[in-house]
Amino acid sequence: MTLTPETIDLLIEARWIAQVQPDTLLDNHALAVRDGRIVAILPTSEARQRFRPTQRTTLDRHILIPGLINLHTHAAMTLMRGLADDLPLMDWLQKHIWPTEAANVSPQFVLDGTRLACAEMLRGGITCFNDMYFYPEAAATAATEFGMRAVLGITTLEFPTPYASDADDYLNKGLAVRDQWRGHPLISFCLAPHAPYTVADTTFERVLTLSEQLGLPVHCHIHETRHEISEAIAQHGQTPLQRLHRLGLLGPALIGVHAVHLAEEELDLLAATGAHIAHCPTSNLKLASGFAPVAAMLNRGINVGLGTDGAASNNRLDIFGEMRLAALLAKGTSGDAATLPARQALRMATLNGARALGLSDEIGSLSLGKAADICAVDLGSLETSPCFDPVSHLVHVAGRESVSHVWIGGNCCVDNKILTSGRANNLDSVVALWQNSLEVRRNN
Amino acid sequence: MTLTPETIDLLIEARWIAQVQPDTLLDNHALAVRDGRIVAILPTSEARQRFRPTQRTTLDRHILIPGLINLHTHAAMTLMRGLADDLPLMDWLQKHIWPTEAANVSPQFVLDGTRLACAEMLRGGITCFNDMYFYPEAAATAATEFGMRAVLGITTLEFPTPYASDADDYLNKGLAVRDQWRGHPLISFCLAPHAPYTVADTTFERVLTLSEQLGLPVHCHIHETRHEISEAIAQHGQTPLQRLHRLGLLGPALIGVHAVHLAEEELDLLAATGAHIAHCPTSNLKLASGFAPVAAMLNRGINVGLGTDGAASNNRLDIFGEMRLAALLAKGTSGDAATLPARQALRMATLNGARALGLSDEIGSLSLGKAADICAVDLGSLETSPCFDPVSHLVHVAGRESVSHVWIGGNCCVDNKILTSGRANNLDSVVALWQNSLEVRRNN
Repeated sequence: MTLTPETIDLLIEARWIAQVQPDTLLDNHALAVRDGRIVAILPTSEARQRFRPTQRTTLDRHILIPGLINLHTHAAMTLMRGLADDLPLMDWLQKHIWPTEAANVSPQFVLDGTRLACAEMLRGGITCFNDMYFYPEAAATAATEFGMRAVLGITTLEFPTPYASDADDYLNKGLAVRDQWRGHPLISFCLAPHAPYTVADTTFERVLTLSEQLGLPVHCHIHETRHEISEAIAQHGQTPLQRLHRLGLLGPALIGVHAVHLAEEELDLLAATGAHIAHCPTSNLKLASGFAPVAAMLNRGINVGLGTDGAASNNRLDIFGEMRLAALLAKGTSGDAATLPARQALRMATLNGARALGLSDEIGSLSLGKAADICAVDLGSLETSPCFDPVSHLVHVAGRESVSHVWIGGNCCVDNKILTSGRANNLDSVVALWQNSLEVRRNN
Repeated sequence: MTLTPETIDLLIEARWIAQVQPDTLLDNHALAVRDGRIVAILPTSEARQRFRPTQRTTLDRHILIPGLINLHTHAAMTLMRGLADDLPLMDWLQKHIWPTEAANVSPQFVLDGTRLACAEMLRGGITCFNDMYFYPEAAATAATEFGMRAVLGITTLEFPTPYASDADDYLNKGLAVRDQWRGHPLISFCLAPHAPYTVADTTFERVLTLSEQLGLPVHCHIHETRHEISEAIAQHGQTPLQRLHRLGLLGPALIGVHAVHLAEEELDLLAATGAHIAHCPTSNLKLASGFAPVAAMLNRGINVGLGTDGAASNNRLDIFGEMRLAALLAKGTSGDAATLPARQALRMATLNGARALGLSDEIGSLSLGKAADICAVDLGSLETSPCFDPVSHLVHVAGRESVSHVWIGGNCCVDNKILTSGRANNLDSVVALWQNSLEVRRNN
């Protein structure tokens, strides 16, 4: 009896597959995709008999991993990459970033900046980003042009910007954009009150109500600097985290960004309430905020994902770099080289991010039925040889420069290091125009 | 009157040049090379009139910098890259690294391992490395095959290995190799007593005498872990640094490696004696040794260069990565984002390394009369755009993947990312054989 091969859209034959869930490393396996979803993972020899794929990609020195998830960024700020480095935080913000934003940010700025960010992130194996910026409709357009998955922040502040006049205006504009994009397979939204020091209690209360009514995550900077904590104690008699807890914000919908300075009882509170943390180690060091207590968070079972922050404070949108730095810092600060092993770093960069975003049924691991969001990493270069442990190599040896292919929902977005979107074609000249414009304004 | 153009070997026309000394950034300048040395740096428009080059390379979106100097590595250990990660230091050493070395290290192991290391380092912009390993004659052969500059350690231990039987045997073998290679333009030597905990007083005394007689630097691990310091106090009644000072080793010939744990008076002692430090931030974190007080060293005027350490504890031989990590850690530990600005990080990776090696008349900056050891970095990719400050981009944005060309003594060793040495051709299969051999022995 001869079985008729099943028709599928794509078969990727790989040297290794790290599914993340389950936490196994498969040798010489293939991954089958139909209608954008993973329908089988099996030995390549079996796959060749069982399937007739429309497309076949053979990667004989590569490892397939889930697409990386950037759990915190301000994508459009990539146009301000390296605009002002090696400066104290307040100088950086007040003398450089805020004036540049005030003079330049517009729907076109966000569209072009997010295009550049998507191009960079995709080539570095990132398939989904959690964004906090203005004009989310422009960011949604940019992401979908590149076939990229995005969770867009309904950013909220008390003070006016060219984008909105007050907290209600920010919320209403963001919710309207969400309505326009409802049902899009790649785009979702979260509420993004900027930070406790820029958002009032009444606004947090409305954010909480909306989060509960609409089932949206809440994406908020917390405890990035010692300064904001002491200011909050002076103003509210509570740390920002205590205040958020009083307001009911701490819970499984919250993605707290940075969380650098935390007392023991605040770590316990995060664990008890099921809040998630977006750890941004490069940004925390570059702005001299400090060292987040990641080992202590993980020991308590707090779900920690990884973020790049914006390119004005990093200056790379590079989750491979954040994986390595997170692992190194956790070892260095704990004094134990066994802390945050490679498998855990990879999980932080994938499944933990998906869980924080409420998307772990859809993405975050190479599991049957999930969307085919996949990154292929070449471990066969001289720089990655020899290779005794492919997962350890992902963290400690490979880098974003090792990424060869990226698929999102089964669509190939990066093919042998080349972006497939036509939008990539003249991006360099678009960016050059913005650079000139920013430099002219800065010099005046 | 028409001037006759001068004949030169090579003219490199670049978008930018960062000489490091002087600390200027030149726009649209060219660098002229004759007989392996830098003979002029001038605006490209002038250079085209003044010179008739045998070869011309035009790099219109690149910055030229001095070749990077890896101030501490164990090059041949690259064959053990990632052999045993995420393990406590003593498990890592005693259960994995030492047994693997005991079973495998040979002249052929060192030859092939150093070839792999040279290939990796060159493609990452490193033109000179300071090595500490066995069989320096094999390492010298490998380096010269790739056209690479190396300072080879006359490694010295008290205990026997397949290479040598006791401290005098190590020294005598190393000095004999030095005699054989005397006068080679790329190869020099330094004394490399492994560490205070593996070398006796009498050996340090002989090392000091040889250093003074022969004018050789002394390359030695110091104060990498708290454990070695408390052991030394118990055994000698002194910290390792105090002991080295008593023996007369602290001085401008000393390159102390790691120097993670230092008391204030030990920092003062290093500054007063003019000793140099090789800072290896990735290795220090990966092995959980700790955070070296680099900001305090720099504040005291101590000369600090950068090292990768061996690929078994890093696991990349990547000085771009060490520059970025050194800058980030110095900001994070000092609490000041202005600490260790990009220009200083670049100087650490170039001129400071040359000074430590006693080679600053020859290399370390793009200065007239010095050897043409040059690295070209492409700042025109999407990942490095926009570019407001090219030097800051070198540290915070670019990576070794941005290196396009490398010259050493005027010879092109990397041409548009491709190694020019024929030795690069079958290196992957050579490494695969070693990987199989190491895996077979490990599994038995």
